[in-house]
Amino acid sequence: MSKRITKPSPISGFPEWLPQVRRAEQMWFDHIRTIFEQYGFCPIETPSVEALDILNAKGEDEGDDVDKEVYVIERLHKEDGDKEARLALHFDQTVPLARYTAQHYNELVFPFKRYQMQRVWRGERPQAGRFREFYQCDIDVIGVDTLPAHFDAEMPAIIWEVLASLPGMEDEKIQIQISNRKILIGLLQALGVTNIVEATRIIDKLDKLPENEIRSLLNEQIGMAHDACETVLKLATIKATDSSFAQRVYDLGIENDMMREGVEELSFVMDQLAHIPTGGVVADLSIVRGLDYYTGTVYETRFVDDPTYGSICSGGRYDDLASNYINRTLPGVGISIGFSRLFDRIRQKQQLPALGISPADIMVIMPSEDRRAAAQSTAHTLRQRGFNVEVFHSGSKLKRQMAYAEKKGIPYVWFPPFDDSGESKHEIKNMTTGEQASADPESWTRD
Amino acid sequence: MSKRITKPSPISGFPEWLPQVRRAEQMWFDHIRTIFEQYGFCPIETPSVEALDILNAKGEDEGDDVDKEVYVIERLHKEDGDKEARLALHFDQTVPLARYTAQHYNELVFPFKRYQMQRVWRGERPQAGRFREFYQCDIDVIGVDTLPAHFDAEMPAIIWEVLASLPGMEDEKIQIQISNRKILIGLLQALGVTNIVEATRIIDKLDKLPENEIRSLLNEQIGMAHDACETVLKLATIKATDSSFAQRVYDLGIENDMMREGVEELSFVMDQLAHIPTGGVVADLSIVRGLDYYTGTVYETRFVDDPTYGSICSGGRYDDLASNYINRTLPGVGISIGFSRLFDRIRQKQQLPALGISPADIMVIMPSEDRRAAAQSTAHTLRQRGFNVEVFHSGSKLKRQMAYAEKKGIPYVWFPPFDDSGESKHEIKNMTTGEQASADPESWTRD
Repeated sequence: MSKRITKPSPISGFPEWLPQVRRAEQMWFDHIRTIFEQYGFCPIETPSVEALDILNAKGEDEGDDVDKEVYVIERLHKEDGDKEARLALHFDQTVPLARYTAQHYNELVFPFKRYQMQRVWRGERPQAGRFREFYQCDIDVIGVDTLPAHFDAEMPAIIWEVLASLPGMEDEKIQIQISNRKILIGLLQALGVTNIVEATRIIDKLDKLPENEIRSLLNEQIGMAHDACETVLKLATIKATDSSFAQRVYDLGIENDMMREGVEELSFVMDQLAHIPTGGVVADLSIVRGLDYYTGTVYETRFVDDPTYGSICSGGRYDDLASNYINRTLPGVGISIGFSRLFDRIRQKQQLPALGISPADIMVIMPSEDRRAAAQSTAHTLRQRGFNVEVFHSGSKLKRQMAYAEKKGIPYVWFPPFDDSGESKHEIKNMTTGEQASADPESWTRD
Repeated sequence: MSKRITKPSPISGFPEWLPQVRRAEQMWFDHIRTIFEQYGFCPIETPSVEALDILNAKGEDEGDDVDKEVYVIERLHKEDGDKEARLALHFDQTVPLARYTAQHYNELVFPFKRYQMQRVWRGERPQAGRFREFYQCDIDVIGVDTLPAHFDAEMPAIIWEVLASLPGMEDEKIQIQISNRKILIGLLQALGVTNIVEATRIIDKLDKLPENEIRSLLNEQIGMAHDACETVLKLATIKATDSSFAQRVYDLGIENDMMREGVEELSFVMDQLAHIPTGGVVADLSIVRGLDYYTGTVYETRFVDDPTYGSICSGGRYDDLASNYINRTLPGVGISIGFSRLFDRIRQKQQLPALGISPADIMVIMPSEDRRAAAQSTAHTLRQRGFNVEVFHSGSKLKRQMAYAEKKGIPYVWFPPFDDSGESKHEIKNMTTGEQASADPESWTRD
C-alpha cells in the first residue's frame, strides 16, 4: 500500500520561524517585557476571543475598517440548538483591555498600569507582507475620573528605551512623533467647523495625499473657506524637537481654551522627554491618528530613513475607555508596538543577532556507551552552575558528535574523562576559536 | 442621553487572571522554559491555526474524540467566491510539530529537540472545570530513521525536574508512571490476539472501570479466553520503582522478541532515572495511553494523593511522526505538560506564591510637582542598577502615595530629598518591616 504524501505549505499571513529566528523573537519579547516591568507595568493576558458583540461595539466607532476583518470561531461539530454566544478572535488589545477593566473593576488598583503581549488576528484579504496573525506589545494606564499627564510622557519615554535597545535595531534611526488632538480640534472649533470628525479624518491623510487634494477635500466636504484651510495646513507643518512648537501655534493668531490646554499638555510631555537624544522625539502637529476615540496626546513612530513604511508604534489618550460596560469614567493613555511587523522587517534586513539553533552553551561528549553515567554527571554539575548543557545522545564517533554541536551552533564542547584511570582529564573546546584546554566542571567559566 | 451599560461576563472555558495571578503564571512559564533550555531544547512556535484537512488527518487516527472538538475560524465578512483553505485552531502541539518538521525538513538539524509552549483550543461542550482555551508545554525529539533510547529517559528526567521545583508545587507528591507498549502488544501477540488496537483500548480503561468489567469486555469484544485475560490483567498489576519489573514480566511465563525489546527499553529508562527520589518515577505496566500512534515508551503523571485527578503530563514514543507529509521515517518521543489544568489546581488550592500586583521593587515618592525631575532621576539611577521602579505620578499627599504602594504590593518606598538644601537626604522604607533608613540610589541593595 503506497501512502499519499502531501508536503504541507505555509498558510498566507500566518508566519512561523525556524528555531534560530524564534530564539531572537524570544529575546525581543524578554527585552520588551523587562523594560515594561522596570517601569512598574503589570502583566495581563486576556482570552484570544471576545464575544462578537463586544468586538462589534468597537467596530461601529471606527467606521467599517475593523469590523470586516474579524475572524469568528465556531465548533466544527456544533450540535443544532446549542445556544452559545458568538465568539471571535480579538483584533487588538484595547477592546479586550476595556472589557477586562470593567469586568474586574472592583479587584483592580488604579491607576491600573498593565502591559500585554499577545497575538491578535485580522482576517484581511491575503496580500504580500500583511500578517493575519501577529503580535502586539501594548502598555496602557487607566485611571478613574482623572489621569495625570505624567503618563502621557511616560509612554514615549518607555517606547524610546525599548526600541532604541532592541537587538538588531542599533543602526535604525527611529522617531516618535507626538501631537495633541486638542490643538487641532480647538483650532477647528475656533474656525467654526462643525463636522470635526470628518475634518480630522481628512487631515489625517496628509501623509498619503498631496496637500492640494487635502485642501480640496476640506473645502468641498467640510465647506471650509480658503483662509481656514490655510491655517489648518499651516498648523500641520509645525514640527519641533522641544516645546518651542508652542510659540508657533500661538503665532497662527487664533486661540481658545481647548487649544491652550492641548499646547500645555504637549509642552509638558516634550519637557519631560528632554533626556532623549535630539530627533528621537518630535512634537509634530500633522499627527492626528484616525481612531476617533483619541482625545488628547497621540503618538506615531517612524523609521527616519523610510517614513513611508508607516507607523511601527502608535497610540494616544482616550477620555473614557469602557463607557459601554461601566458607569464610571475611565480615562486612559496607551501605546502599542506592532511587534511582528517590526521584527519581520529587521529579520528581512538580516539584522537580527546571529543565534545558534540550540540554546545550549555546552555539548558534553559521550566518549562511549559505558561512560554515559560520567557524561551525565558532568552535564548535571554544569547545569547546576547555570549553564545550558546537552549531552550527546549516544557513544558514537567523535567526528559525528562534533559535527552535531557545530550544526546546532553550540559554542563549547566538553570532553569528560575517557576512563577512570585519572590520567584522562576534563577538557573543553571553544568552537569559535578552536582552542582546547583542561577544565573543571565545578569551576569553569566562560571566557 | 443615557448610555446602555452592559457589564461584561466571563466566557465559559476561556480563563483569564488578575495581574498577581498572571505574574505567577509567567513565573511558571519562565521556570519551565529555563529547564527545557538547560537540556538544549530549542523553542519554536507555530501559528494558532492549521489547515482543517491537516487537523482532520489526525482526527481519523484517533477515533472521533478530537475531531468533534475542533474550532474552525472564518472571516466574518468573507466575500462570496473567496477561495481560501479552511482553517481551524490547533487542539494540540503534536500535529503542528509533525507538519512543521516535514515542511522545514531541509532546514532543521536532527535529532530535532524542540519545546513549544502555546495555547491550544478544544471546542468541548461547556462544563465546569473544563477549559476550551489552555496552555500546553511540550518537549519532543524527532530523529531521522532512528532515535536513541537516550531521549526516552531524558523526557521524564526533565519533567521531574520541572514539576518538583515549580513554585507552589513543593508539597505536592507527584509520580511519573512509565511503561512500554511493546510489552503489552508483544504479550497480546504471543496470546494470539488479532484485534490489538481494540484490546489496548479496553485495557487502557483499567483506571476507570472495575477489573471484572475489563475481563468481560476482553472476552466479549476480543474473544480472549479466560487464561489469556488473567495473564494480561496480571501484567497490568506490575509496578516497580526500578528495573526489577523485568523479572516479574518474565515470570508470566510468556515471552517473544517484541516483549523482550520492550522490557529492555523500559529497563534502560528506569536505570537512567535512578537519581530521582524513590517513588518519583515508577515502571507501571497498567499505563497504555489511548492514542494509537504511541509504539514504545509511554508516560503519565499523577498526584499521588489524588490519582483520580487524571494525568497532568503525558506522552510517549511514536515510530513515525510525519508519514502523511514526507517520504522519510521520523521517529520521535515527546511529553506534554497540561499547564493550565495544573496551574489552575495549584491556584485553587491557594498554593501559588503570593505576589504583589505590581512587578515594581521600589516606588519613588514624588515630594511635590517641582521635585518631579529629582524623583525621575532617582528612579532612573535605580533602574540602571536593575531594579523595577515606579515613580508616583503626581506630587499628591504622602499618605495617598504610600497607600498606592501598599495596595500594589510594592515592597520598598523611596523618599528622594525634599529640597536641594543638602539637609534632606534619600531614605528608603521597607514596607514589610516598616523600617526606614537613609540610602544612596547608587549603592543601595535589597536586604
